[in-house]
Amino acid sequence: MIPESYPADTDAAARTLADPDTPFAVVDVHRARRNIERLAAKAGRLGVTLRPHVKTAKSLEVAALLHEGDRPCPVTVSTLAEAEAFADGGYTDITYAVGIDPHKLPRVVALLNRGVTLRVLLDSAEQAEFVAEASRRAGLPVPAQIEIDCDGHRGGLRPEAPGLVGIGRILHEAGCLDGVLTHAGESYFACTAADQRLAARNERDSAVAAAERLRAAGLPVATVSVGSTPTAHAAEDLTGVTELRAGNYVFFDLVMAGLGVCRVEDLALSVVVTVIGHRPEYGWIVTDGGWMAMSRDRGTAAQAEDQGYGLVADLAGNLLPGLVMTAASQEHGTLTARQGTRLPDLPIGTRLRILPNHACATAAQHHGYHVVDGARPTGNAPAVQGFWGRVSGW
Amino acid sequence: MIPESYPADTDAAARTLADPDTPFAVVDVHRARRNIERLAAKAGRLGVTLRPHVKTAKSLEVAALLHEGDRPCPVTVSTLAEAEAFADGGYTDITYAVGIDPHKLPRVVALLNRGVTLRVLLDSAEQAEFVAEASRRAGLPVPAQIEIDCDGHRGGLRPEAPGLVGIGRILHEAGCLDGVLTHAGESYFACTAADQRLAARNERDSAVAAAERLRAAGLPVATVSVGSTPTAHAAEDLTGVTELRAGNYVFFDLVMAGLGVCRVEDLALSVVVTVIGHRPEYGWIVTDGGWMAMSRDRGTAAQAEDQGYGLVADLAGNLLPGLVMTAASQEHGTLTARQGTRLPDLPIGTRLRILPNHACATAAQHHGYHVVDGARPTGNAPAVQGFWGRVSGW
Repeated sequence: MIPESYPADTDAAARTLADPDTPFAVVDVHRARRNIERLAAKAGRLGVTLRPHVKTAKSLEVAALLHEGDRPCPVTVSTLAEAEAFADGGYTDITYAVGIDPHKLPRVVALLNRGVTLRVLLDSAEQAEFVAEASRRAGLPVPAQIEIDCDGHRGGLRPEAPGLVGIGRILHEAGCLDGVLTHAGESYFACTAADQRLAARNERDSAVAAAERLRAAGLPVATVSVGSTPTAHAAEDLTGVTELRAGNYVFFDLVMAGLGVCRVEDLALSVVVTVIGHRPEYGWIVTDGGWMAMSRDRGTAAQAEDQGYGLVADLAGNLLPGLVMTAASQEHGTLTARQGTRLPDLPIGTRLRILPNHACATAAQHHGYHVVDGARPTGNAPAVQGFWGRVSGW
Repeated sequence: MIPESYPADTDAAARTLADPDTPFAVVDVHRARRNIERLAAKAGRLGVTLRPHVKTAKSLEVAALLHEGDRPCPVTVSTLAEAEAFADGGYTDITYAVGIDPHKLPRVVALLNRGVTLRVLLDSAEQAEFVAEASRRAGLPVPAQIEIDCDGHRGGLRPEAPGLVGIGRILHEAGCLDGVLTHAGESYFACTAADQRLAARNERDSAVAAAERLRAAGLPVATVSVGSTPTAHAAEDLTGVTELRAGNYVFFDLVMAGLGVCRVEDLALSVVVTVIGHRPEYGWIVTDGGWMAMSRDRGTAAQAEDQGYGLVADLAGNLLPGLVMTAASQEHGTLTARQGTRLPDLPIGTRLRILPNHACATAAQHHGYHVVDGARPTGNAPAVQGFWGRVSGW
């Protein structure tokens, strides 16, 4: 899975995490594999197909860990740029899980014409008409799923919404109706395991109820798709569901650790930064990793334990207890010690790894990932196994 | 200034803002020019050299507006990637305004060897020793500025700090001492014009006091550099200062408008998004522009008027009063109407322009900018004059 050589545009001399100039993103492939195996086993027990969301890593090399040498698995994407890159990489079963903008349908049709099964998402009759019209013009159906709102998080129709069946009919008449999809976005705020199980049950119930309503109206529903990282891990019964989606779980992050979905030791993504200053009068250590390297995401601010912009580990990955990245400007990070802990002595030039709040947002600040294997014995500076690129843009 | 043709990797068919798939970033070159002229005139009146910070736009084409056909101006950069790109673009007078990480000194020396005057920043004897040692090894002095802390914002030494003169001596003995630099980072929280004038006076006073201390110790101080977008616009007297830095002012943003440094009509950067859904039961319009397009920056949350993730304009740039982007997930934005305003009727497919909280953070989410000229008469969809790329990475 790990490429033998670096792409031409990366630091070919990087042999350990002490080599590339900071800041840069690191993936611990051992942790990513462990996270992947955990959810794959769960999906197997639940009897559903897993359709990982590749929007977190946006990387063909990371996605290859999902099927380890087997043929490409089904994937979910958040942009057509991802869909196109994954189609180029041999993925032929792709769901584009953002409500379709009619202006983007020509690119959808182009992918279908390449033999990719690209499903689109919608929640209105207007969009369904656009999809039906594009299908008629293209002479091939654009497979579409109706987005179901299970928790008032974002888009979708409530399972009982009056318009649901009408949308289903427009799609069915054009040969486009594939099924229903829901995402328990509010599960990111479900703070206990019991609440997460409830969110998972509600997500399943909503999707299945919508599918049953469509079927009762004589409409075929092939796909019943549910998922979010918290609910995927919390689900106990997915009867009536055909597939499970989750994305963040490959890397995990402090928000997920704060919810108890994973442990801090499961976080596979970090950002290497360097100490560039000290302000002992304020209790600050200043690094060269600001929000440009970490993103502005402060997802743990709403949790019981606010982790600032991230927790701090040494270059080998060992947490430095009590040290938190509490402030960020564009290219500066400020580390402080929690009350009751002493600020460690970290000279100028010391490299650290910052564990992020939100892996999707932090990963997006980087061109790609330096890859290490946390399972291999290492000195202070883990060996770099390769550099994995990222898809960006739309 | 506007290139005749598109780079090969951009949407060559984009003739108006209705053409490229959304989301994408737009620069109104008329507003940018007006913003540039305003501060250039101010610097002229104050009798100081303007050294714009290119970290906001990170674009050679945007920077070209700063000198409009004349030879490249002095610039400030936030990363060595910017320094290298601007050196490639003919800029020879560059200040790298983030405390130097010794690991990065080989790239600094490489730029010096190309004939670029690249100044580095530091605030400790350790860094000064690293710079002195690198200079001795390279056989040429690395010009360095001592960072002065004027307001407890981030890095730097207080002007009265005991270590200041010692650092100056280490640098001077190696031929490296160029001067002092300070940045009134706390001016971003100075909510009145009077507070901003105070911040500007304090910034000047701190830099000049540090320079005078060094000079009193027999050390030569050539450069006395101050600046931030708020203080640059508020400064009334810069006696003793040699140069003024500011970056955000080329684009401005809602944080700056909230401080009164500019008007909302001065904002030169926006992001074009498309309506992809409606949730009338919640009062939401859903777009395809989430935090991936806007960044997670919520800078106006701390201001008197919280602008959410941004204000909303039509494609021609006219504000839609009362409409605010109040929530964001990765590829979804939620627009709501402020209390007392009615949610406008915006059908699926409608394109809108979102004005961002923080131009530096929003611009960083994009590969480059579609360029329009707000001074030219336009229909609903302004003509695209070109595509300007961005430098990214470190």
